[in-house]
Amino acid sequence: MKKINTSPISGMQELLPEVQAVFNDLKNRISETYFSHGYLNIETPMIDRTEILLAKAGGDTEKQIYKVVKTAETADDADQALRFDHTVPLARYVVEHENDLKFPFKVSQIGRNFRGERAQRGRFREFYQCDVDVIGRGELPLYYDADVISTLLDAFSKFELETPVLARISNRKILSGLLSEFNLEEKSDDIFSIIDHSEKVLIEKTKEAFAEIGLGSERISTMLDFIEIRGSRAEVMKAFEALGIENETFKEGVSELNEVMSLLEADGRTAEISADMKIVRGLDYYTGTVFEFNLPEYKHVGSVCGGGRYENLAGYFTDQKLPGVGGSIGLTRLFYVLNENNLAKSQTRKPIDTAIVPITENEMPFALKVAKELREKGESITIVGLDKKLGDKLKYAAAVATKGIVLGEVEAQSGKYEVKIFED
Amino acid sequence: MKKINTSPISGMQELLPEVQAVFNDLKNRISETYFSHGYLNIETPMIDRTEILLAKAGGDTEKQIYKVVKTAETADDADQALRFDHTVPLARYVVEHENDLKFPFKVSQIGRNFRGERAQRGRFREFYQCDVDVIGRGELPLYYDADVISTLLDAFSKFELETPVLARISNRKILSGLLSEFNLEEKSDDIFSIIDHSEKVLIEKTKEAFAEIGLGSERISTMLDFIEIRGSRAEVMKAFEALGIENETFKEGVSELNEVMSLLEADGRTAEISADMKIVRGLDYYTGTVFEFNLPEYKHVGSVCGGGRYENLAGYFTDQKLPGVGGSIGLTRLFYVLNENNLAKSQTRKPIDTAIVPITENEMPFALKVAKELREKGESITIVGLDKKLGDKLKYAAAVATKGIVLGEVEAQSGKYEVKIFED
Repeated sequence: MKKINTSPISGMQELLPEVQAVFNDLKNRISETYFSHGYLNIETPMIDRTEILLAKAGGDTEKQIYKVVKTAETADDADQALRFDHTVPLARYVVEHENDLKFPFKVSQIGRNFRGERAQRGRFREFYQCDVDVIGRGELPLYYDADVISTLLDAFSKFELETPVLARISNRKILSGLLSEFNLEEKSDDIFSIIDHSEKVLIEKTKEAFAEIGLGSERISTMLDFIEIRGSRAEVMKAFEALGIENETFKEGVSELNEVMSLLEADGRTAEISADMKIVRGLDYYTGTVFEFNLPEYKHVGSVCGGGRYENLAGYFTDQKLPGVGGSIGLTRLFYVLNENNLAKSQTRKPIDTAIVPITENEMPFALKVAKELREKGESITIVGLDKKLGDKLKYAAAVATKGIVLGEVEAQSGKYEVKIFED
Repeated sequence: MKKINTSPISGMQELLPEVQAVFNDLKNRISETYFSHGYLNIETPMIDRTEILLAKAGGDTEKQIYKVVKTAETADDADQALRFDHTVPLARYVVEHENDLKFPFKVSQIGRNFRGERAQRGRFREFYQCDVDVIGRGELPLYYDADVISTLLDAFSKFELETPVLARISNRKILSGLLSEFNLEEKSDDIFSIIDHSEKVLIEKTKEAFAEIGLGSERISTMLDFIEIRGSRAEVMKAFEALGIENETFKEGVSELNEVMSLLEADGRTAEISADMKIVRGLDYYTGTVFEFNLPEYKHVGSVCGGGRYENLAGYFTDQKLPGVGGSIGLTRLFYVLNENNLAKSQTRKPIDTAIVPITENEMPFALKVAKELREKGESITIVGLDKKLGDKLKYAAAVATKGIVLGEVEAQSGKYEVKIFED
């Protein structure tokens, strides 16, 4: 009988061991892929100064941040809170350790972040994010935008999903330049936000939204045409040319997008990428390349990865200009989505390779020896040390492991044994 | 110029990437070892109900726990705090998921915990603990006490330290029985605490402490003799016999210690274990086997691992009796200690294997191809995508990677290249 509510707090992921093993496997694949592309892993504290975490925040972030109460023994500390993403602690880290880092600094972070938002199916308050970033000092070539996207695509390829992944790429300068050309800079925030939402609503809603902020029917029509621009590099370049826009920012954005996509094509990613003017990324700190990954066969799940280029990582913390580009896989949400759509790899295989069952305690020394030998071959081994009947021991063995080895007097004396494969 | 204090909060570990790589390597070795011994990994939320976390706590724990402030959007939640160890969340987990687990449940947890204690050199407020536990339902054979100790010893062996590790083992029933025999049960808590501290103080202090709680000189002398009992199984069994104590609890403790040590001997651990009556473990929830690991050549660093058997994991949460045995490596502290004593493995090797340097952007497609090939062979590769002079690119390459490959027109055409090993 339970005496107390033992469920985890709402919005916190808690998995059974067999499912956790699948989650960990995805996490390890991400970690190995990031490292194989030259991204060095760091870990920042989960608790940081509120002053740092909220230096540039506002809106939802400020409302959703979990503040931490100081204890009597830490009363001298600054006010503190739980990090809500990896980007702000990374900015602090880079400024703090600037003299010990090599720039461009290719860095990965894999860990849990915290946001106290309203409980919702598939939304988590504690969630893994798996980030890669490249931080330059003063400048950072466009090559790294492609490097980040290619690395993230490679991570997805390592998941071995049976559905394709598409990286949809844009550059915020294109839309900014377009708005400038049309003297719509003042409505820029609204328009970015309308486009950001345009995928989740019917086209009429988007039209209405544009009308509500005062766009005339001709402009609305231009904007609707613009956000439909998508496709291969060649296709979108033709579409941009047809627009005949001479604005410098627009042309810079087009040229950057062209270069990033060329690099990705040279890396053999042609089938996995698409330019797409619907991609703007809500967050205001992106200044150039922006991207989102989708599963085109599972449109309803939305974005499974996103990121972009930011002109200045740590403007609130230092005068040193630190441009960066980065992206993040929201692993907790992705894992939830994969499971919902039966796309996660099978969880039926039991994680332990072999259970060794000594019939009596006399066979224990031999069991320990066999366990050691098999472990050295890379197997995961459990010895069933129960004081129970053989039948019960075997039942347990079959429940936890894929294979079983029963050791009795004969086996201990001969040093030979049979391996039985348990049926599921 | 920095505009703000960017240091992490005191008591939080934050490492440079090359050092983080060494830390991660230790963590991975622990994780692989635990799994190879059949312990399934789980992760519990870092934020949990205060009611759960403090169900049985008191004293320091209650003072040091970090409470978390609910946000406006999570106001309906229970009061919450950050977990301070893995044991309490494990108890909640086992009760919550009891029907989906196989018992004995062999489980590992590797993650950060939080204690807001006074800042001190080598003490951390956010720290990794790497736990293994076996939880039984109703009963749990002594075999698993040996299984836990052997697994933890194996993890230490995987660190490849150049100093030996010693598992010092006792059983709390031995001391309890002894105190019962001498009618000292009422002073039991005090005596456990004095013995727990006896290693850190001079023998005179221990004598005084015994005298202060009212022990006569004969009893003091017995106690001092008792806590000096240590050594191989054969040695301590002889010493126990010489005491001639008939108390049942005492005899049970001796018998259990004998069995656990026999099992470890059968597992080839003879040189790595020692029975030791100074080991009592402060925490009151241990009821049988207790152990601590030390580095005998580095006595001042104290315990580097500890654990024991508890009769009932989750008595506050359920009526179901769940006996367990477990142990934990405090990895953040251990890593600090290893570094302080120059025992951590070398950090001089650069983590990235190879930097590929295309001389101009014309060589980028070939660079991407070579990178892919080397990555498939398991190397960690970075492409130097800088718009700089070759000399600057090479300087960066040599700073981040062990080997370098320069790709010019000739290499791109021939498809052949040289690998240069950078000197440190």
